[in-house]
Amino acid sequence: MVYLDNAATTSPKPQSVRQALAIAMEDSVVNPGRSGTAVAKKVAEDIYNCRKKAATLLGAKQPENVVFTLNCTHAVNFVIKGALKKGDHVIVSSLEHNAVMRPLSRLKKEGYIDYDIAEVFPFDTDMTVRSFERLIRKNTVMIICTHASNVFGVINPIYEIGMLCKKHSLMFTVDCAQTAGVIPVDMTECRITFLCCAGHKGLYGPMGTGLLITDGTPLKTIIEGGTGNNSHSLDQPEELPERLESGTMNTAGILALSKGIDFVNKNTPALIYDHEMRLIQTAYKLLKNNKRVQFYHHLPLKWQFVPVLSFNVLGHTSMQTAEFLSKNNIAVRAGYHCAPLAHKMFGTDSFGTVRISTSAFSVENDIKKLVYAVNKFVSLKNNY
Amino acid sequence: MVYLDNAATTSPKPQSVRQALAIAMEDSVVNPGRSGTAVAKKVAEDIYNCRKKAATLLGAKQPENVVFTLNCTHAVNFVIKGALKKGDHVIVSSLEHNAVMRPLSRLKKEGYIDYDIAEVFPFDTDMTVRSFERLIRKNTVMIICTHASNVFGVINPIYEIGMLCKKHSLMFTVDCAQTAGVIPVDMTECRITFLCCAGHKGLYGPMGTGLLITDGTPLKTIIEGGTGNNSHSLDQPEELPERLESGTMNTAGILALSKGIDFVNKNTPALIYDHEMRLIQTAYKLLKNNKRVQFYHHLPLKWQFVPVLSFNVLGHTSMQTAEFLSKNNIAVRAGYHCAPLAHKMFGTDSFGTVRISTSAFSVENDIKKLVYAVNKFVSLKNNY
Repeated sequence: MVYLDNAATTSPKPQSVRQALAIAMEDSVVNPGRSGTAVAKKVAEDIYNCRKKAATLLGAKQPENVVFTLNCTHAVNFVIKGALKKGDHVIVSSLEHNAVMRPLSRLKKEGYIDYDIAEVFPFDTDMTVRSFERLIRKNTVMIICTHASNVFGVINPIYEIGMLCKKHSLMFTVDCAQTAGVIPVDMTECRITFLCCAGHKGLYGPMGTGLLITDGTPLKTIIEGGTGNNSHSLDQPEELPERLESGTMNTAGILALSKGIDFVNKNTPALIYDHEMRLIQTAYKLLKNNKRVQFYHHLPLKWQFVPVLSFNVLGHTSMQTAEFLSKNNIAVRAGYHCAPLAHKMFGTDSFGTVRISTSAFSVENDIKKLVYAVNKFVSLKNNY
Repeated sequence: MVYLDNAATTSPKPQSVRQALAIAMEDSVVNPGRSGTAVAKKVAEDIYNCRKKAATLLGAKQPENVVFTLNCTHAVNFVIKGALKKGDHVIVSSLEHNAVMRPLSRLKKEGYIDYDIAEVFPFDTDMTVRSFERLIRKNTVMIICTHASNVFGVINPIYEIGMLCKKHSLMFTVDCAQTAGVIPVDMTECRITFLCCAGHKGLYGPMGTGLLITDGTPLKTIIEGGTGNNSHSLDQPEELPERLESGTMNTAGILALSKGIDFVNKNTPALIYDHEMRLIQTAYKLLKNNKRVQFYHHLPLKWQFVPVLSFNVLGHTSMQTAEFLSKNNIAVRAGYHCAPLAHKMFGTDSFGTVRISTSAFSVENDIKKLVYAVNKFVSLKNNY
């Protein structure tokens, strides 16, 4: 199978990640923090090391600020419902995923908070920042911004938005689902209060792993329970990461994620990004030769885009194109990608897009096969 | 290592579970429900089959009512915060885990709900049921009861409590963390509204898997986000299981859990329970010969207890005993086990207990080694 759906989850996973998962199931099947045995202590140490690696990679203050969650969506919910108070106002970008929009939409409907959507002007940092600034009200407490669109790959200027947040003393939440491990993120430098990301995308861990990294700003909890510490108390502990990690965690998944971060560090994000972008640019250029293929922006340049590319075949829904590709053993994603706002912005909200996305394991031949199949689809359909 | 901490997580896992996890990482690394490829469809089908097996094993109405969560604690939180409204009153048993108590305690502190604790009279069903009934008020909407204590193994009469709930039209939530896969549970027969359990204990799946099974009673959500369906809408979908499964799930974990349920079905819960209880009774009888070992109840009889046994060595904290055992390569758990209420009830709230718990893979030799080590600990300490 030609797998070009790495923005959903990277595949394959590095050998070291798969091995770590297998070993974790053989040797380390103990519940860390719930037992005092040597094995449990070793597992707890390995999990701490994973926090340490994530903290270093993403510029967090300390490993304790790295919280493991089920996925990026849970991390985002922990932030939105943990940091906002009744009457607060939030500004989001026009490229947000439903992981951000659905929680906000619910809270707004309940009259708990209000939010506005700042239009992003791709590649025009000043206009984008002004777009956010214009919406700041007296009760604005937070900006939430995706680091890069999961549909069109467009990168948002999070450093500059971070400075805007600093100027107005706002909390700053960044959804790094598509960027962690792919392009550099330094949450301290960008003055990010809460960074949310998946463990199973650019960090090459298994599905079922997400991260919430905080700068230490306190969060109310939306989930409480046993944390392996302070058992005696009916109150959720205050300290991180325990406060936000209730119940038994995905231990094997976290141990494997740790190897995924090693993989990224070893190959270096810079080289991985370069490789992935080269393939995406090749796809763009080759598909562009076909007049029936429509793109929604110029050639995806480095530092403007992450390796995520949306297109359509004129006269066909994204689903029809993807189905044909699937029959030709090419995995892409079609539809709305859980991000209706982004489609509105790019005018694709009535038919969605076909999305391709690369990983460190993608090769030029994957792109050639894709282009061949898309051209075949176009020619077949034109002969109808 | 002699592993007697199966109530924290069963270990080892069946070969089929470990294999399924490895295969899922090799072949099925696609995001089901986020892609239309043949592999993604196969994974989605396998996940549906896991729902089906869980529904059959636990007596749910239909597979769609089986929701996968990170762990049992998350499932309990989804219920407590999804079903209760301001001003509601809840009754819980005196054996509840912090997964139940901490969320309730927080909601009570915020003045959102109120709760009372019904004293359980072990093995006296009538007294126990009356204890619950006495606390029912006009605004009582739910009883939450653990199926069995995670500290002392005592089984609660959930059928009779279910009938009480029926009589008074109350919702009934049962925490089956220690019983799913171990003793029979039929949620329809017991009139259970919400059944919460772990996937990584008696169902032999990996950590990072939990289940919330509903009878269809609607729940508000505490987490919203992308669900792979209705992408266009900013509202969380109404239908199960999507409504309660936001973001990417622990796919490999769920596929492995599916094999865990197969393992339970193949070996039959009846035979597994019989085996585990025989070992626990052996441990009880042998340790009882040592006058320095204290238990908190009579011999754990079948259908009164699950295979979870607490004790202490007189004159030593539970931690000291467990540390000695750990040095002798025996894994048990010591302390409060995230269940302060249970310790209050049994008078162990100032020193905790040493807890042993068996699995289908435990053998008589594990018990003999434990008994030998405990006796050694006692004799060493007496010679000080």
